[in-house]
Amino acid sequence: MNLRDEAAALDREDPLAPLHDQFSLASDTIYLDGNSLGVAPKAAASRASEVISGEWSQGLIRSWNTAGWFALPKRLGNKLAPLIGAEQDEVVVTDSISTNLFKVLSAALRLANERDPKRRVIVSERSNFPTDLYIAQGLIEQLDRGYQLRLVDNVSELASAIDENTAVAMITHVNYRTGAMHDMAALTRTIHAAGALAVWDLAHSAGAVPVDLNGAGADYAVGCTYKYLNGGPGSPAFAWVPKRLQNACTQPLSGWWGHKKPFEMSPEYRPDDGIGRFLCGTQPIISMALVECGLDVFLQTNMAALRQKSLALSDLFIALVESRCANFPLRLITPRAHAERGSQASFEHPHGYEVMQALIARGVIGDYREPRILRFGFTPLYTRYVDVWDAVETLADILATEAWRAPEFAERGAVT
Amino acid sequence: MNLRDEAAALDREDPLAPLHDQFSLASDTIYLDGNSLGVAPKAAASRASEVISGEWSQGLIRSWNTAGWFALPKRLGNKLAPLIGAEQDEVVVTDSISTNLFKVLSAALRLANERDPKRRVIVSERSNFPTDLYIAQGLIEQLDRGYQLRLVDNVSELASAIDENTAVAMITHVNYRTGAMHDMAALTRTIHAAGALAVWDLAHSAGAVPVDLNGAGADYAVGCTYKYLNGGPGSPAFAWVPKRLQNACTQPLSGWWGHKKPFEMSPEYRPDDGIGRFLCGTQPIISMALVECGLDVFLQTNMAALRQKSLALSDLFIALVESRCANFPLRLITPRAHAERGSQASFEHPHGYEVMQALIARGVIGDYREPRILRFGFTPLYTRYVDVWDAVETLADILATEAWRAPEFAERGAVT
Repeated sequence: MNLRDEAAALDREDPLAPLHDQFSLASDTIYLDGNSLGVAPKAAASRASEVISGEWSQGLIRSWNTAGWFALPKRLGNKLAPLIGAEQDEVVVTDSISTNLFKVLSAALRLANERDPKRRVIVSERSNFPTDLYIAQGLIEQLDRGYQLRLVDNVSELASAIDENTAVAMITHVNYRTGAMHDMAALTRTIHAAGALAVWDLAHSAGAVPVDLNGAGADYAVGCTYKYLNGGPGSPAFAWVPKRLQNACTQPLSGWWGHKKPFEMSPEYRPDDGIGRFLCGTQPIISMALVECGLDVFLQTNMAALRQKSLALSDLFIALVESRCANFPLRLITPRAHAERGSQASFEHPHGYEVMQALIARGVIGDYREPRILRFGFTPLYTRYVDVWDAVETLADILATEAWRAPEFAERGAVT
Repeated sequence: MNLRDEAAALDREDPLAPLHDQFSLASDTIYLDGNSLGVAPKAAASRASEVISGEWSQGLIRSWNTAGWFALPKRLGNKLAPLIGAEQDEVVVTDSISTNLFKVLSAALRLANERDPKRRVIVSERSNFPTDLYIAQGLIEQLDRGYQLRLVDNVSELASAIDENTAVAMITHVNYRTGAMHDMAALTRTIHAAGALAVWDLAHSAGAVPVDLNGAGADYAVGCTYKYLNGGPGSPAFAWVPKRLQNACTQPLSGWWGHKKPFEMSPEYRPDDGIGRFLCGTQPIISMALVECGLDVFLQTNMAALRQKSLALSDLFIALVESRCANFPLRLITPRAHAERGSQASFEHPHGYEVMQALIARGVIGDYREPRILRFGFTPLYTRYVDVWDAVETLADILATEAWRAPEFAERGAVT
């Protein structure tokens, strides 16, 4: 592609283009960071107003029933389910991804222990998002029964690391840094062939790529709603447990929302039958309610259409960077093969931090990840082909003019 | 008091009366359920609009830093601290009360184990709010090291139940059902004299009664922000750990927000120094931000003034019920002694459920708790003396006319 007009032509032909208008995006911003925080659906502001001025202010305590607040985790879970290949009543939207991982990893270890108490290893990747590793470490320390976290440095070592001592393989489907995507079905088969359980983290998958948890035979999964699902900053995460495993175990965060009859106020915990037992405490309703605004946009399309555009956007971005920035030390670390790529493209640059700050200063918002990584997410609900074109032009100019060398771009603040 | 005018005169003389206007309350509603869900501060709607249309929609990912989202748990914790006798940097607003209890109870058991590994008993009251008992049960089951939950049926048995085998006494300061309040300082002394640690639940205390955690020498505490603190439905809860114990132990929900350097993205968990290590995962920012609207109202008054009015309101309510409903089988189960009473009054009635439904149908909103309990909360920021008068008049009329016998009031829906 040699002209911005060609990108504009792609937008005109794009069947998803009308969805762009359902999001609140400043016209001077090119946002390639929906993999970190999704853009606000326009519906979110009015929905928040309804919840605050109507349900809370007027409905008051009655709204727990009349506005369906108490039912939100399961109802939103059912709305999210089709995006990840889950059945109805297999997903709850609740808590944070870290907390949900603690729950499902605890349940998985209990189940693995029942099946074969010799298995004491959790296998994961050192490149996994840190909170997953931290949660596993916290759980292992708490259990204090000889569990170990075995981390592989390279994906090629993963299959051989999963062996007769493995209780659980805890795998993130799409790597947050590189965008590399596992073959969920194949890796789940490998995990099961070794007699272990498969816990999947879908933080960078849900709403980003087609996911078929049941088709893959996965055992447990968690994910978040504030990235590709556009649920709002820090919006509640989700947990998935297939029907066949829901009642196999309890989980330790046994708060009253997971009780079979919470309003009997019994002093004895009795876990709910089904996915409800993966709930814990009272949920932040306003943040929770807005998750629905993000999910509702997905009802107007499907993951196959989104995936097609996502790959077209990332292919275009990679091709343009490699042609228009060919003289600069950028190295693609995202797999080129479609089957191995999530919905992002990451490049290493020796001054990645400064280059990203210079991009952001010009309104092209991606993000930086240690070490030296420029990360760009593609969110086909609202990212346009011209955005890709303009972003690369801006990057090329920043590199050609060495604008990133300005002192203000070297200052390290807190980064997210 | 024999006339509504006398109540109106009390309102005219009430220095807290102007605060009523800072809340969104329908004029046809008398709300005596702020102990379950606080009323919306008027500021909440505009703050939500700022967060959604400004910080999220315009600021996007930058708002984690520029709008201070990442700092909210500690900043709001510092704002809440004076209300509970906490120092700065001793409180985080985060997660649910159930999840926070899991954290602090885990930390308390670790510390108790270091001090004396023979202690394997958690003491609590059978009448405690169920989720506290459920969380203790879940933790005990997970630890699987012989811990027991010892529940006393009567408060008079509590001191003798705390003995040389007790690791932790897990006590709720104000009972959710009866409104009975413990003497925190005295009971903490008893707990410490037995060599145990004191974990306090402030769900019905924070913003309701003066609390002095440090003055009482308490060890850990949790509480919620959606009751008397008016933070919004299910708004994030809080955890308090005094400086002297913060670094004594880690807690098992070791998510990335509790890491010393979360953005180094290290695969090894290193707990933050201080209260930060009691954070876990990414927080629901919109619900979190609104907690501040509730806290800001408290900056305009103080707990001593609020306590004085709270007791005046509940004294008046009790006196009016006992005089104007004397012919009906209502029995006060809330202590009459001020020092033993929280900010509510609860009455048993053989048809408590139906009576409460009839009250709600007439715009007097209290709530019902098993078994047979009518529960009325008094929230001096927005409850007026005339509200108390009108509520009792409505109750008297419902009892006198037996309006509660209408069939629609017998239907049991989901209750909260």
